[in-house]
Amino acid sequence: MVTKNQIKLVVSLKQKKYRSQHGLFVVEGEKVVNELLEAGIRPFKIFVDKADQIQKFGDAELVSKRDLKQMSSLVHPNGVLGVFYMIEFGTDDLQDWVVVLDAVRDPGNLGTIIRLCDWFGIQQLVCSKDTVDCYNPKVLQATMGSVARVNIVYTDLIGYFKNTSLPVYGAFMDGDSVYGLNLPKKGILVMGNEANGISDEVDEYITSKIAIPQFGAASTESLNVATATGILLNEIRRR
Amino acid sequence: MVTKNQIKLVVSLKQKKYRSQHGLFVVEGEKVVNELLEAGIRPFKIFVDKADQIQKFGDAELVSKRDLKQMSSLVHPNGVLGVFYMIEFGTDDLQDWVVVLDAVRDPGNLGTIIRLCDWFGIQQLVCSKDTVDCYNPKVLQATMGSVARVNIVYTDLIGYFKNTSLPVYGAFMDGDSVYGLNLPKKGILVMGNEANGISDEVDEYITSKIAIPQFGAASTESLNVATATGILLNEIRRR
Repeated sequence: MVTKNQIKLVVSLKQKKYRSQHGLFVVEGEKVVNELLEAGIRPFKIFVDKADQIQKFGDAELVSKRDLKQMSSLVHPNGVLGVFYMIEFGTDDLQDWVVVLDAVRDPGNLGTIIRLCDWFGIQQLVCSKDTVDCYNPKVLQATMGSVARVNIVYTDLIGYFKNTSLPVYGAFMDGDSVYGLNLPKKGILVMGNEANGISDEVDEYITSKIAIPQFGAASTESLNVATATGILLNEIRRR
Repeated sequence: MVTKNQIKLVVSLKQKKYRSQHGLFVVEGEKVVNELLEAGIRPFKIFVDKADQIQKFGDAELVSKRDLKQMSSLVHPNGVLGVFYMIEFGTDDLQDWVVVLDAVRDPGNLGTIIRLCDWFGIQQLVCSKDTVDCYNPKVLQATMGSVARVNIVYTDLIGYFKNTSLPVYGAFMDGDSVYGLNLPKKGILVMGNEANGISDEVDEYITSKIAIPQFGAASTESLNVATATGILLNEIRRR
């Protein structure tokens, strides 16, 4: 049986503060729980609301629908809620491209970018400290299992740039067309905030400003940061 | 003053049935209302909740915050709500690439795809009848003004394919790598449903199956349909 204290713990994990304090995070849904287990992420506890699912996850805890709803972040809980120990990300070997995010705030965008890194085999994602938390439930719903396969680090970007010898490419509306560039085998791709782009402090460390050419009317809105990341990673990999 | 009947009319436009019946649709926010006006889309009525905004839109109607909230689809209405006559889309001249959507259901995805068409100068977007309505408020919030610059047609795809002589490229997980292809100057790009991809009936009209190569682990989730559309349109335009 689940105790009141356990429910309280799981509910508290909706907040970043308590995720950091306990070193735990929550995902919901059979598919993503399975993906994390397969990726070797260590479960703290898995809760299910149907008896026939207990065995599916090795050793899950049966709870009432009511208790699961209390713990869930979803309007319609889907019957499986996993609490996992935070992922220990490996170290950055810098043999490949690295993606750096400067204050990306939308959970859906971060989730999509993590999936894109996974798709294009980018192993290292470096986020500014004001980028949305990768253990935010909305991020996790958008990444599926990809969060277990990409190293995600939150750090001070200025310190990071000071210590790298890699060329730093930044996505700017007025950068040079990426089509004409000879992209190197390894480098850093920086993507900026949804509303403000790359910050002035980070701009100082950019060695090449790049852009995706626009073919439509000049009044068109800029591309969404996740879509732009997908197109630029495709450009990096197609060479 | 806004009448009860006007409020009822605006509220009814949240449903596709009434949008079609009245030939009207709703957008919210100063920026997107302005973009539609600039694009020459004819307003039926524009409602604002601050007196100093009446002149901004030529001839807007001042309403109370309470009335605006009643008409709005947003949790936090943003002070400007425009009701517009449906856009009369031009005809398809087939001198360029056309994007075809086969049962794309997510409003955010359709909105992003419309923006991508606008960015890459694709003028014609053909949707199956079971694709989400482009006048759905969530689609409109995601497109911004792009909806006014891309011709969007809902039609029976089989009839459409029977009448075209253009080559038909479809995005499939197991298609040929798009990197190795010599894409023509004009053609049709078909993108499928979020969960099921391109339907069997449409598959029969595909002349080339194409894919975005994957570089990460085989267990990775497929790319989101909007991201994949962005990457493929970039591939089409970069040549």
